[in-house]
Amino acid sequence: METQRIKEAVHWRLLIDTLLDPGYHADRVLQGGYVINVVTREIYQADVAVKGEKILMVGDCSDLIGPSTTVDHVEGKFISPGFIDSHMHFESAMLTVTEFSKLSIPTGTTTLVADPHEIGNVLGVEGMKAMVDEAKTLPNRVLFTVPCRTPDAPGLETAGHDISSKDMPELLNDPWVQGIGEIQGFSNVNPVYRHAPDILDDQIASVSHAHRQGKTVEGNAPALFGKELAAHIISGGTHVSCHETTTKEEMMEKLRYGVTVFMREGSSQRNMAECIRAVTEEGMDSRRAVLVSDDMVPEDLMKDGHLDDIVRRTIDQGVDPVEAIQMATINPATHFGFRDVGVLAPGKRADIAVIGDLNRMRVDQVYLGGVKAAEQGRLVLDIPSYTYPDSVKNSVKRSPVKKEELRITAPNHPRVKVRAIEVIPDQNLTEALEFDMNASDGVVQPCLQRDILPLTVVERHGRGGRIGKTFVHGMGLQRGAIAESVAHDTHNIIVCGTDYEDMVLAVNRVISMGGGIAMIAGGKVVGDLRLPIGGLMTDELTGEELSEEVTRLHRLAEEELGCTLHVPFMHLSFLSLVTSPKWKITDVGLIEVDDFKVLPTVIDGR
Amino acid sequence: METQRIKEAVHWRLLIDTLLDPGYHADRVLQGGYVINVVTREIYQADVAVKGEKILMVGDCSDLIGPSTTVDHVEGKFISPGFIDSHMHFESAMLTVTEFSKLSIPTGTTTLVADPHEIGNVLGVEGMKAMVDEAKTLPNRVLFTVPCRTPDAPGLETAGHDISSKDMPELLNDPWVQGIGEIQGFSNVNPVYRHAPDILDDQIASVSHAHRQGKTVEGNAPALFGKELAAHIISGGTHVSCHETTTKEEMMEKLRYGVTVFMREGSSQRNMAECIRAVTEEGMDSRRAVLVSDDMVPEDLMKDGHLDDIVRRTIDQGVDPVEAIQMATINPATHFGFRDVGVLAPGKRADIAVIGDLNRMRVDQVYLGGVKAAEQGRLVLDIPSYTYPDSVKNSVKRSPVKKEELRITAPNHPRVKVRAIEVIPDQNLTEALEFDMNASDGVVQPCLQRDILPLTVVERHGRGGRIGKTFVHGMGLQRGAIAESVAHDTHNIIVCGTDYEDMVLAVNRVISMGGGIAMIAGGKVVGDLRLPIGGLMTDELTGEELSEEVTRLHRLAEEELGCTLHVPFMHLSFLSLVTSPKWKITDVGLIEVDDFKVLPTVIDGR
Repeated sequence: METQRIKEAVHWRLLIDTLLDPGYHADRVLQGGYVINVVTREIYQADVAVKGEKILMVGDCSDLIGPSTTVDHVEGKFISPGFIDSHMHFESAMLTVTEFSKLSIPTGTTTLVADPHEIGNVLGVEGMKAMVDEAKTLPNRVLFTVPCRTPDAPGLETAGHDISSKDMPELLNDPWVQGIGEIQGFSNVNPVYRHAPDILDDQIASVSHAHRQGKTVEGNAPALFGKELAAHIISGGTHVSCHETTTKEEMMEKLRYGVTVFMREGSSQRNMAECIRAVTEEGMDSRRAVLVSDDMVPEDLMKDGHLDDIVRRTIDQGVDPVEAIQMATINPATHFGFRDVGVLAPGKRADIAVIGDLNRMRVDQVYLGGVKAAEQGRLVLDIPSYTYPDSVKNSVKRSPVKKEELRITAPNHPRVKVRAIEVIPDQNLTEALEFDMNASDGVVQPCLQRDILPLTVVERHGRGGRIGKTFVHGMGLQRGAIAESVAHDTHNIIVCGTDYEDMVLAVNRVISMGGGIAMIAGGKVVGDLRLPIGGLMTDELTGEELSEEVTRLHRLAEEELGCTLHVPFMHLSFLSLVTSPKWKITDVGLIEVDDFKVLPTVIDGR
Repeated sequence: METQRIKEAVHWRLLIDTLLDPGYHADRVLQGGYVINVVTREIYQADVAVKGEKILMVGDCSDLIGPSTTVDHVEGKFISPGFIDSHMHFESAMLTVTEFSKLSIPTGTTTLVADPHEIGNVLGVEGMKAMVDEAKTLPNRVLFTVPCRTPDAPGLETAGHDISSKDMPELLNDPWVQGIGEIQGFSNVNPVYRHAPDILDDQIASVSHAHRQGKTVEGNAPALFGKELAAHIISGGTHVSCHETTTKEEMMEKLRYGVTVFMREGSSQRNMAECIRAVTEEGMDSRRAVLVSDDMVPEDLMKDGHLDDIVRRTIDQGVDPVEAIQMATINPATHFGFRDVGVLAPGKRADIAVIGDLNRMRVDQVYLGGVKAAEQGRLVLDIPSYTYPDSVKNSVKRSPVKKEELRITAPNHPRVKVRAIEVIPDQNLTEALEFDMNASDGVVQPCLQRDILPLTVVERHGRGGRIGKTFVHGMGLQRGAIAESVAHDTHNIIVCGTDYEDMVLAVNRVISMGGGIAMIAGGKVVGDLRLPIGGLMTDELTGEELSEEVTRLHRLAEEELGCTLHVPFMHLSFLSLVTSPKWKITDVGLIEVDDFKVLPTVIDGR
C-alpha cells in the first residue's frame, strides 16, 4: 500500500507537469461529448483528458492533445462517471468475480462493492480472502464489505466457520476490504435484544474495530421504524445503509434517520419504484438515495444490463437522468468516502461510461483507469479466467445420507398435525402454516395434492452432521426432488421433494459433486450443476455458459419435476435464511425467527 | 483514543438499552419543535431525545420520557444541527480558542475547523500543539487543519519555524488534527511551478502523508481556472476545498471541477452573495457549497453573530432556509467525512441549535453533546479562561531597531524613482506603483501629501534580523506610525509611518511588549495592545474586552494618526502576504509575487 501511495504521488506530479508544461500531452482525450456533472447536476459540452489512469481535466482540452494523444470522438454522446454497485453478492450469480465483471463492465459498472457473506459462512476468513485475492487481479475496482458474524443466528444454525469480532482486525486490514457488510445479525432488533444480546455486544465490538481502522459499516433494516430503526442504526455506528427498504414510508423514515438507502433493484427483488416515491412525490433530497443490485443472475446481466438498466428504470419513474445517475455515482461514493471515483474531475480515476442515448441508457464505451474496456456492449479488454485454489474447493464435508435420516417420523400415529413453511413467491419472508397429515409405518408422507412436501437441511461442514426437518407448502413439485448446497446463509444442503428416496439421491448427488444443485426424479438425475467454490460458485463456466446451464435447469425443473415456481433454486435457498420472518428451516430444525426458538414439526399425533 | 472508542461502544449499548428496554429513559427531550432535516431537506414536527452526549431518536419521543428526563419545551421553534465553521483562524480574532468559542457557541456554532497557520509560522509544531491542547479542554468541537509548509515562500520571507512534509506524520497523528489546511504554497500555480518546484514536490509528499493517515487536505485556489485549477486540485490530492472564490464564474468552475467551495463571509471578506448565484441563478446542486467565516473579529461575533448571521445572509440571497442550513451542517460534515455531526439522527452527537425565528436565524438555545450551553444568546455553561504556557509566549526574539536600520536610502541622489505597494481597501491583493520622491541627506523621506509612506518588515524570530523596506500608498496616515507583530504569514514586525523616528519607537514598543500592536505619534505611545501568544493573540482579555480595546485602537488610529482606512491593522498585516499578488513586503524586501523575485525599492537616482 505504501508503494502504491508513492506511485500515486509520482502520478500526481506527472499530471501537473502535463497540465502546466507545454511539452507534455494527454494520453487520451474524449472529444466533443456532453459531460454529465454529478456534482452540479448539469450536462454541458466538455472534453475529458486522461493521463495514465487518471482524469487530467474536464473542459476544453484541445491544447492537451499532442502527437501521441489518442482522440476518441464522442460527439453527441454523454460522458458519465462509471457506475458503482454499492451492494451485491457474487455468490448470487454463482460466478467468480472475474466472470461477473466481464458481464458487468460493458454495462458501465466500474466499481463493485461486494458482500462475501455467503462464502464467509462456508469458508470463513480464508474463503473471503480468496475472493479478495481474485479481485486484486482485475482492472475494475472490486471492494468488499465483510460479515462481522457467521452464522447470523448462532445456536440456531451451523456455518462452516464462526466469524466474530475477533476476526475483524485482520480482515479489515486489507485495503480491498471497505468495511463491514450488512449487519443482519441485528436486523431483527427486538428478538435479538431479548434473546441473544451477545450477538449485539459482539457486533458493537466489530463496529468499533471498523471505526478504528477507518472503515465503514453497512446496515440491514427491513421493516424497521422508530426506536427499532434507531437502535439498529446505532448498533452499526450511526453511518449505515439499508438495502432492504421496500415501501415509500420506510424510505422516508430511513432517509430522515440519516440512513443511506440502497434501493434494491436486482434479479429477484425490485424495490426502487416504490422507494423512489419519497423523491418523486415528496420531493426529498436524494443525496442519500443509492441504486444497488444486491442479487443478479447472469442471464439478467446479459439480457437487461446492470446499473445502466437500473438507472434507466429509475428515469422511467420520473427522475431526471442526471439525478438518477447521481444515485449510482456520487451518492454511493460519498456514502463510502470514496474520494477518487464517482465524479469526473481532475485527478480522479478515469472510470468512465460513454452513453449514446441518455433516456435509454445505452452505454457505448467504458473506460477503466483510462483504458478502453468495452465498446458497444462488448468487452475489448482481455480479462483471463480465474481459477480458485483447491483450498476453497471440496467444501462439502460429510458422508452420504440414508433414507431413514431424512424421514419425518410420527411413531404410532396414523394422523398428525404438522407445521409447514409457506413459500411467498419473490420474497425472502415466509408464512407459517399447520396441516393435518397421514403417516404410514410411522413416517409422515408428502402430500402432492395439497403441495405439502418434506423440507430438510443437512449439515455439510463437518460440524456434527445434524439434519433439520420440516414441511414446505408452495414449492409446487409434482415429482422428484431438488437439493442444493446454496442455502442461505450457512449453506448447508437443503432439499425438498415429493419422495424421500429421490431426496436422498439428490442430497448425495450434491455431496458427491462437492457442492452444487441436483434434481432427481424417479431415482435418476434429471439435471445438475457443480458449484465447486464453497458449494456456491463455479470457476468452470463463463457467465454465458452458466446462464445457459441455469436456464436448462429451470426448464428441466418445470418439465421433469413439474415445478412452475419462478426461480425455484433461489426460493429453496432462502427457506433457511433465519434473519427474516417467520419460519425457516436449518440443520437445527424448524426455527421461529422472531422468538429465536426451535419448533417441533410434528405437533401431535392422533 | 482507544479508550475513547471503547467508551463510545459502551455508550452505543446504553443508547440501545434506552431505546429497547422500557426501564430506561432519555436524559433530555426537546419536545414540540419542528426539526430541520438536512438529509431530506424538510421541516416537520418531531421531538429530539438525548441520552448522554448523543441523540437517541428524532420523532415521537413521548415514551422515552421518564421521571428523570428533562423536557425542554420548544413548541413552535426549529431544531437544527449545530453549525460547523469549516475554515477559520483564531489568530484573526486575536483570541484564544476558549474566548472565541465563548462568543461563537451562543450563535449556534458547535464545530470549528481552525487553520492555525499563523501560529505555525511563528512557533512551528509546538505552537500549533499548544492550540490543540487548549481545544481539547473545550465542550464544543474544535479541530485543526494544519499548514504543510511554513513559510509559504521559502527564500522570500523568514518564518519562526520551517514546517514541511517531515513534520506531517507527527502533526497529523493527533485525533484533533483533521488534516492539512489551505495549501496556499501552490495557490499561485504557474509561478511556483516555474520558479519553486520544490514547494510543489514537498506539498505532494505532505498530501500523501495525509492520505495515508486518513486525513483531509484543503485547497486555496483564488482566481484559478482551467488547467491551473486542475493542477492545484491534483496537488492537494483531488478532494479539496477553496475558500478564496469570489465570483459566480469561479464558483461554477470550481463546483464543476469537484471542489467544495467554502463561500467566505467573514469580517473582512464577503464572497457569498456573488458565489451563491451559481445556485440561485444557475440552479447548480449545492451539495458542495459550504459557508465559512475565515476571519472574524470579536466585535462582529458579538454584534452580528457567526454562522447564524452567514446563514441569514444566504437566505437573504433567495436560498431556501433549509438549503442554507445544509451549507453549514451536512455539506461541511460530508466534505470532511465527519460521521457524527452535521445531521440530527440516532447516535449522532447532540450538538443542536434551537432557532426561534428561521428567516431571521435567531438562535434561542444551543446544546453541546446534549448539555445546554447557551440560552437567548448568552452562554450558560461555565467555560474557564485558558492560560497558555510560557513556551508559546516571548516569541519576539530580537533587540531594538535603530533609526538607520529603517531608513530607505538613496545616497547621492536628491530625487529618485521608487516602487510602492498600493493598498486596495478590503482586499488582500495589492497594486504596484512607482513614484518620484525626494531624498535629503541620502534618505528618501515620506510624502504625506501623496500618501507615500515607508513600509518596513523587521525579522523578529531570531533568525538573522533582516529588514525589508519599501513604500506604501493608501494607508492614509497623517502622522505617527503603526507597528505590529501580526504580519501575514510569517508575522515579523511590520511598520509604516509618516516619520522614521516614530516608526522606530513603534517597532521597539512591539518588541518590548513581547508582541502586539503599537501606535506612536510625536514620539509618544498613543495606543497599544499586548499579544503575548506568538505575538498574535492574547490570553489576557476576554472577547468583549479585546473588542473594546480594538475599537479604542481603531478610534485612536483615526483621531491621533488621522488614518481613515477601515481596519488599518488588518490591512497593514496583509501587506506582507506573499501568496497573493502583486507586490508585497517581507524581511527579505519588496517581493514581486508572480515572479518569485525581490525588487529594489529605489529604482534609480537622478
